Amino acid sequence: MGMVGGGEGSFIGPVHRIAAELDGKIELVAGAFSSNPERSKQSGTNMYGLVLDRCYSSYGDMFEQELSLDSASRIDFVAIVTPNHLHFPIARAALESGFHVVCDKPATLTLQEAVDLKECIDQAGKLFALTHNYTGYPMIREAKHLVQTGALGRVRRVNAEYIQGWLADLEEKTQNKQAQWRTDPSRAGAAGCMGDIGTHAFQLTEFVTGLEIEEVSADLTTFAPGRKLDDDGNVLLKLSNNAKGVLCASQVAVGVENGLTLRIYGEEGGVEWSQMEPNSLIVRWKDRPYEVRRTGGAGVHQPSASVTRLPAGHPEGFLEAFALLYRNFAESVVQVQKGKKASKCDKDFPTIEDGVRGMRFIEAVVTSSENDSQWTPIVR
Amino acid sequence: MGMVGGGEGSFIGPVHRIAAELDGKIELVAGAFSSNPERSKQSGTNMYGLVLDRCYSSYGDMFEQELSLDSASRIDFVAIVTPNHLHFPIARAALESGFHVVCDKPATLTLQEAVDLKECIDQAGKLFALTHNYTGYPMIREAKHLVQTGALGRVRRVNAEYIQGWLADLEEKTQNKQAQWRTDPSRAGAAGCMGDIGTHAFQLTEFVTGLEIEEVSADLTTFAPGRKLDDDGNVLLKLSNNAKGVLCASQVAVGVENGLTLRIYGEEGGVEWSQMEPNSLIVRWKDRPYEVRRTGGAGVHQPSASVTRLPAGHPEGFLEAFALLYRNFAESVVQVQKGKKASKCDKDFPTIEDGVRGMRFIEAVVTSSENDSQWTPIVR
Amino acid sequence: MGMVGGGEGSFIGPVHRIAAELDGKIELVAGAFSSNPERSKQSGTNMYGLVLDRCYSSYGDMFEQELSLDSASRIDFVAIVTPNHLHFPIARAALESGFHVVCDKPATLTLQEAVDLKECIDQAGKLFALTHNYTGYPMIREAKHLVQTGALGRVRRVNAEYIQGWLADLEEKTQNKQAQWRTDPSRAGAAGCMGDIGTHAFQLTEFVTGLEIEEVSADLTTFAPGRKLDDDGNVLLKLSNNAKGVLCASQVAVGVENGLTLRIYGEEGGVEWSQMEPNSLIVRWKDRPYEVRRTGGAGVHQPSASVTRLPAGHPEGFLEAFALLYRNFAESVVQVQKGKKASKCDKDFPTIEDGVRGMRFIEAVVTSSENDSQWTPIVR
Amino acid sequence: MGMVGGGEGSFIGPVHRIAAELDGKIELVAGAFSSNPERSKQSGTNMYGLVLDRCYSSYGDMFEQELSLDSASRIDFVAIVTPNHLHFPIARAALESGFHVVCDKPATLTLQEAVDLKECIDQAGKLFALTHNYTGYPMIREAKHLVQTGALGRVRRVNAEYIQGWLADLEEKTQNKQAQWRTDPSRAGAAGCMGDIGTHAFQLTEFVTGLEIEEVSADLTTFAPGRKLDDDGNVLLKLSNNAKGVLCASQVAVGVENGLTLRIYGEEGGVEWSQMEPNSLIVRWKDRPYEVRRTGGAGVHQPSASVTRLPAGHPEGFLEAFALLYRNFAESVVQVQKGKKASKCDKDFPTIEDGVRGMRFIEAVVTSSENDSQWTPIVR
Repeated sequence: MGMVGGGEGSFIGPVHRIAAELDGKIELVAGAFSSNPERSKQSGTNMYGLVLDRCYSSYGDMFEQELSLDSASRIDFVAIVTPNHLHFPIARAALESGFHVVCDKPATLTLQEAVDLKECIDQAGKLFALTHNYTGYPMIREAKHLVQTGALGRVRRVNAEYIQGWLADLEEKTQNKQAQWRTDPSRAGAAGCMGDIGTHAFQLTEFVTGLEIEEVSADLTTFAPGRKLDDDGNVLLKLSNNAKGVLCASQVAVGVENGLTLRIYGEEGGVEWSQMEPNSLIVRWKDRPYEVRRTGGAGVHQPSASVTRLPAGHPEGFLEAFALLYRNFAESVVQVQKGKKASKCDKDFPTIEDGVRGMRFIEAVVTSSENDSQWTPIVR
Repeated sequence: MGMVGGGEGSFIGPVHRIAAELDGKIELVAGAFSSNPERSKQSGTNMYGLVLDRCYSSYGDMFEQELSLDSASRIDFVAIVTPNHLHFPIARAALESGFHVVCDKPATLTLQEAVDLKECIDQAGKLFALTHNYTGYPMIREAKHLVQTGALGRVRRVNAEYIQGWLADLEEKTQNKQAQWRTDPSRAGAAGCMGDIGTHAFQLTEFVTGLEIEEVSADLTTFAPGRKLDDDGNVLLKLSNNAKGVLCASQVAVGVENGLTLRIYGEEGGVEWSQMEPNSLIVRWKDRPYEVRRTGGAGVHQPSASVTRLPAGHPEGFLEAFALLYRNFAESVVQVQKGKKASKCDKDFPTIEDGVRGMRFIEAVVTSSENDSQWTPIVR
Repeated sequence: MGMVGGGEGSFIGPVHRIAAELDGKIELVAGAFSSNPERSKQSGTNMYGLVLDRCYSSYGDMFEQELSLDSASRIDFVAIVTPNHLHFPIARAALESGFHVVCDKPATLTLQEAVDLKECIDQAGKLFALTHNYTGYPMIREAKHLVQTGALGRVRRVNAEYIQGWLADLEEKTQNKQAQWRTDPSRAGAAGCMGDIGTHAFQLTEFVTGLEIEEVSADLTTFAPGRKLDDDGNVLLKLSNNAKGVLCASQVAVGVENGLTLRIYGEEGGVEWSQMEPNSLIVRWKDRPYEVRRTGGAGVHQPSASVTRLPAGHPEGFLEAFALLYRNFAESVVQVQKGKKASKCDKDFPTIEDGVRGMRFIEAVVTSSENDSQWTPIVR
Repeated sequence: MGMVGGGEGSFIGPVHRIAAELDGKIELVAGAFSSNPERSKQSGTNMYGLVLDRCYSSYGDMFEQELSLDSASRIDFVAIVTPNHLHFPIARAALESGFHVVCDKPATLTLQEAVDLKECIDQAGKLFALTHNYTGYPMIREAKHLVQTGALGRVRRVNAEYIQGWLADLEEKTQNKQAQWRTDPSRAGAAGCMGDIGTHAFQLTEFVTGLEIEEVSADLTTFAPGRKLDDDGNVLLKLSNNAKGVLCASQVAVGVENGLTLRIYGEEGGVEWSQMEPNSLIVRWKDRPYEVRRTGGAGVHQPSASVTRLPAGHPEGFLEAFALLYRNFAESVVQVQKGKKASKCDKDFPTIEDGVRGMRFIEAVVTSSENDSQWTPIVR
């Protein structure tokens, strides 16, 4: 694989490298790690141990040069880990060059770009994965299974929450590059906190419940003085099949590290999951004690057991969950290399469909918030 | 003290008895425990060990008979633990008979009644306590102190939640009296779940933050088919001083027992509390590890330390918190008996002010929900 | 009831008062609260609200005076809450005066006294309860039930632990009376930490497992320089039916409040309980997820359900558990008053049998520790 | 690197592969994965994606063939992941062939072999790492730092525990190879549970406290009928500097997954850590609330911060901790390749010293247990 972005100062670049390689199916062999050619080379050799001549000056360069290699050495796909505004042009270029694409979320800067990107993908006949990595946790798979099989009964109520505290102050005024681009509309998009982490909560909710969030009533707030995008928000949800819910996102919840939690209550039972202790899933029932299912533990079902790497009690974490998306993506890549159409692959990873949904969610919450929290539909 | 309501099948009657007597300052000596005279006597003697001649046939009877006793033997105040629709007439009668009143929440059936009751109280010059008992937990006092002293900085974000699962099915179709009246508009009032437990979350939020919830955007739902009142709801909050928040209440969150939680994030720190493990308060800070303050434990402040009965690690629970309200009420009663004006007492318990606020909250959420979740003010 | 001890500065006196009165069956009406007559009167009136003429100068005085009252007004039993060395003489005098006795643990200063006390009790034909209060927690009852019914299979392994940190320093050099007598061999007995809290862990283990601890290999330590009794200790256990275990006790585990925990593993399942969060019982199974049973919650059995006062999720604590012993004791007192022989009563509270066992445990661990941790039997 | 052992059915082989490669410094390129040549080839190609001609029939073969390759392609070190009885002959052969060695724990089958192995290592001048992987957790590093800097004061008390439930039944009678060799004295050594997991608890205790466990009083038990080695055991500890402690290990604690916990109490503070939620470290203090330090979180110190890969709240797990040992080992290998003497390297990973200590521990606990739990020294 070849990476675009992820140079020095990047948090997510190394994450993608480790996640991609964890299961031994993928190797990072090339990259355009920075728009600054010198820094790209330095990052490639120092951070990723690449040979110098595959550390490219630009992504265009990488695509061109790699295509000139024989197909055995050439990268099979591109991982895009840049700020949001670059996702679309890079993804389009990669697809047009014939590469499959893994792209960080949210899919694009604008909804229109996401729709256009979907078009590009369809035309290219290539695979596209969006790294909504939290879907890779075994206990999320277990929760989804419990909903899907009807064990919980019809879903009534959802509490989805993703709160952090790292942007409580104007971190973007420091040297923190992460803070800089994530709070800048021209690089992050129409929403700040809601785009950066609210979309994860949105996507995870739909992933686990199998329902669609149909309407939102949102109240976005900017607490840090002078910041241009929301850093906090609360959203009432109407879901398909008459379910209701709330989605909260914040980056000013001081002292909270990475508080993604999901709780779902159906007619017969409920599930509660918290990303910071991801190997436990609380399952509540009507007439018996609640139980705690554990990654790889007794009584878990095949959909979670099959994506667990270690015996129960040997905690798996963020990287392992992330790696599942890459593993599943790699399997699809192999299928396509063996002749299967990309459109026919059984894709067990988030795709551009999730990407478009996420951009529609951002658009709807921003619109609702600008209109006194008016209920606003999320178009299918 | 004399009790009205609380006869056989009552959950809250015995709670009030234990809470009132726990600190050794109050004794239950009389009661009109049921509108059925026979049942009142049975309840009084069997459940509460009273002598037969102080188990009255009706509250009117009790007020009259007790007034005929000498003031040393006579009850000093009345505790009202009936369904909501009876709070107002009984409280008014008690006040007019010259008794102080402790009343279960919500204050009354309608907002108008609450306003009228306030008028009655003022005119009677008596004390009135509303048992928003969760304010009696030491760690709630600690949280309030941390906000009040500015340790957390200006409050930005609140998550208040009170969810239960016991009404997931049509429990009111069984013999469960609790379920029957709590889901009946003529006895419970305009809101079901929001009135029964949402008001606790509302009151606790205002109590701890010292802020007012100024506007709500609410979405109430009735999930159990045929039920007349809401059994679930989510409310966006705008608080004074530009804080924001969410309040969730549900009685269909299957398997959840009594999930009252409060989380408050300020500019400098945050607090997180959960009623089911009430002796711990998580305190989060910007630049250091989070800490867990414990009832009676090292480092807690006077407002919580002074309301703790046991050494740290000896868990206090629901009854002890409830008892604090009675203890504080009893102190005020003594002050009044010594000649202080009721209006001049330093009342460390919820009063009719909280009661009126609670009724305004109910009115506002019901109105908002009926108007497509339109932002609706809660009048001061 | 009449109390001996429990005057100003006492932690456990008020606990006994609240616990005794909580269920409305018992009233504290008399006491000899201090060996100093003046302080006894002050404590009685200020702390307990008693009338002056039932605040006695000495326990002898109380027994004599109370006997001169008519049987309806007279105390029915005596609660002894003094330092350990006074338990025996007071209990004997009370029994000989014809009163039933509730006594704090450990039963006596020495094993011989405990044996003698048992003799006194048998001869007096009176009831005697030892307040190993932790047996009163509903989830302890649930655990015992799971063992008793064989749900966990034959018990193999026990971890009993009671650790605190409050004696990490030489607290006895301050004004802390609790620390003073508990570290003084002439008042506390042969063991310090092991006698004070180790006996609770010992008794709870036998209570829940239904097994006898037959042999101990103990290593007691005194960490605080100059202290005369152990403040820390670890004990290997051999139990009946070939079970094994460890019992740890410490009062120098800095920062730990009141860490009594019990874990029991059988051939088919296990239970884990922690006193500081007493309303949860973890139950582990061989082939399914672990479950968390909750006080009053779904699926709990009659032995715990019947001793629960509140709906699930309304936390009960230390006082409520303590109160159960008094409630059960009161029921036995009533039975005896109705003519039943004390020896024939179904006593659902710890008795002098537990007291003698506890003293044998103390003797055995002290002996073992003095003999290089040699395995030492606990005689039946 | 080349692996010996780790073929089909192995749990730990894939763990070593992922751990070794996680930081991008090491690649598995060769292996002798089974004593059965056919299975070795299958495992190498299927499980590890190796080219066929570097899947060797035996470790002797691997060492010989690899030496014939040029030094750039040749493996730099050997990872031994076989049952215990093969550690010594393979490690010796590897060292004599000039390879550095990473070896799973315990070091060898017998103490004598461990002593001999140390001799081999010294003579060969090569690096040797023993994968006591739990030392790689950031919060273990934080705990060690708090002890080392004196923040906790002089250590007084240690509770080390490693309990599991997977051998509650005679799992070795099924097809479970893990259970078969781990319960077989000829392949596992003198101790079962104590050797397999007790040694981890032992090593971790010494690692974090910086103290030596000097004497043990042990009681080992075999609960599963017919099993030849201990499956449960409790050990009293005397540590250097007059500290005391208990070490518990069990593989029959039904339902417990992988319960490694460590608690250390000093004169000023204490730490509590649990492997199953490894990203939290409870730190207790004398006079202030306890705090929870988190992997990568606010206020943690350099020794833990520097070994954290992700921002706080992105959980790291077992594999990441394991990988740290490989990363540190790789750094030492590079140093040696640059000319540094192995004996002069700053080795931040467990070495043969830990291995010899571990074997002495096994010997001491077995001896003590056979002698009525007599205190038995662990020779330096």
